[in-house]
Amino acid sequence: MKKVQETDRVIRGWLEEVRMDVLKEMQDPLAISEKSSRKDLVTNIDKSNEKKLVNFIRQFDPEARILGEEGSGDVVQDMKGHVWIIDPLDGTLNFVKQRDNFAIMIALYIDGKGILGYIMDVMHDIIYGGGPEIGVFTDTQKLRTPDNLTLREGLLGVSGPMLVHDRYHLQAIDEASSGVRIIGSAGIEFIQVLTGKQNGYISHLMPWDFAAGKILSETLELSVTKVDGTPVDMLSSNDVLVSTRNTQKDIINMIR
Amino acid sequence: MKKVQETDRVIRGWLEEVRMDVLKEMQDPLAISEKSSRKDLVTNIDKSNEKKLVNFIRQFDPEARILGEEGSGDVVQDMKGHVWIIDPLDGTLNFVKQRDNFAIMIALYIDGKGILGYIMDVMHDIIYGGGPEIGVFTDTQKLRTPDNLTLREGLLGVSGPMLVHDRYHLQAIDEASSGVRIIGSAGIEFIQVLTGKQNGYISHLMPWDFAAGKILSETLELSVTKVDGTPVDMLSSNDVLVSTRNTQKDIINMIR
Repeated sequence: MKKVQETDRVIRGWLEEVRMDVLKEMQDPLAISEKSSRKDLVTNIDKSNEKKLVNFIRQFDPEARILGEEGSGDVVQDMKGHVWIIDPLDGTLNFVKQRDNFAIMIALYIDGKGILGYIMDVMHDIIYGGGPEIGVFTDTQKLRTPDNLTLREGLLGVSGPMLVHDRYHLQAIDEASSGVRIIGSAGIEFIQVLTGKQNGYISHLMPWDFAAGKILSETLELSVTKVDGTPVDMLSSNDVLVSTRNTQKDIINMIR
Repeated sequence: MKKVQETDRVIRGWLEEVRMDVLKEMQDPLAISEKSSRKDLVTNIDKSNEKKLVNFIRQFDPEARILGEEGSGDVVQDMKGHVWIIDPLDGTLNFVKQRDNFAIMIALYIDGKGILGYIMDVMHDIIYGGGPEIGVFTDTQKLRTPDNLTLREGLLGVSGPMLVHDRYHLQAIDEASSGVRIIGSAGIEFIQVLTGKQNGYISHLMPWDFAAGKILSETLELSVTKVDGTPVDMLSSNDVLVSTRNTQKDIINMIR
C-alpha cells in the first residue's frame, strides 16, 4: 500500500476519469431499472461506474476487499484489513430526473479505521476528499472545521420520508432548527454539512451512503452517529445523524 | 418605454451590477434583523439591493410604479400601467446561513400583463430571463418548454412548513410524486421547474416571490395558479402551484 498522499492523488484521478465517462454517457438515453421501488432506481451508469472503480482499486491495492452498492465488489462481512466502500452514483433519482445533484463516493478503511474519503459533486466538478492524516481538500481549498452551531442556529438536511413520518420527532426538530432542506443525495448533503451550509443531516443510509462522508466529517470534528448518538454499524443500514457537536447534543436531547 | 429587447439588455446589466456589489459586500459582516420571526430575516444587502434597483428603474422608466419586498418602492394597489415587482434578495435565510441558493428577481407588468421576468441565481452567476415576446434565455442558451410530466414522473419542490402541516394533502401528493425537495428560495425553485429538474413547486408566496417566475413559467407553457387551480392575485400572498400542466391536473384532482 502506497503512502496516503500518493493514494489521495490516485483516487482523485479515478474520479476525474469516471466523471468524464459519465458526462459522455449522459448524452445517450439511460437504461433505468427499479430496485426496491419506483423511487429506488439504478441505471447503466451506476453499474459501469462501479465496474470501473472496482478495476481501478483491484489494480492499485491487491489486498482490497470492496463493498459496492451495485454488487460487483466482494461480500464484506467484517472491517479487517483494507476495506474499500464505494457508491458509484449516489442520488440516482436526481441523476435520472434532474441530471444534477448526484455524487460519486469512495472510502478506504484499514482495520476499521477511516483513512481516506471522497465525495465528488459530478456536475459542479468538485471533489471533497482527504482524511485524518492530510485534512479535507477540494482542488482549490482546504476545508476548515465548520462553526459548532446549535440546532437553532442552522439549517438541517433531512430525508423526506422520515420528515413526513415524523421519525425521531423530526417535525419538532425541524421547528427548533432554522429550517429543513431536502436535496435527495446523501453525498451532496454531506458536502453541505462539511462546508457549513447546513449544521446537520439526518437520513436512513446504507454503508456506501455514509462511509466517505463519515471520514471527512470526523476529520473536520463533526459527529457521525446513529440518531440516538450510538456508533454506526459500518456494514448495515443505519438512521444516521451527521452534525456539529452542539447540534448533535440538541437533537439527542429532543429524541430522548 | 423602450423596446422589449433593449429593456431585456438593460435589466440584465442591472442584475450583473447588483451581483458584483453583493459579492463585495458579502466579505463584510452582515447586519441581520428579524422580520415576522427568527426564520424570516432581512439584511443590509436586501435593503441596499432594493434601493439600487428602485433607482435604476426610476431612471429608466418614468412611468414605473414599483412594488418591492423591503418597501423602498411605492404603495401599489392595482396593476394599471407599468408595475415593476422586485425581490432584491430572495432566500435570505439561505443567504445568511449558506451564502448560497439565493436569487434576485425583477418583473415588469404592463396593465396586468407579464412582459419581462428575471431570476438571477447569484452564486452560479446565471440569469434566467425574458418573456412572451422574446422567450426565456440565459446568457448561453434558450430554454425550451419542459416535458409535460405527470406528478408521478417527477420531483416536486415544496415548502417545509406546508409539508409538515400536510396542507392540501401535501404528504399524499409527495407520496404520489417521485419525491419532494426543499431548497428554501422561491427563485431557485422556479429555476428548477423552468429547467425541468422539478415538475412543480408549491409554497405560500408573496407577489415578489412569484412575479418574475410566473412570466417565465407561462412563457414556457407551465401553469402558475393557486394550489386549487384558480388565478393568483398579483397584489397579495397566495398558496402558489407552478408546474407542468399534467402535474397541475394531478394535484388538483388530489386536493378536491
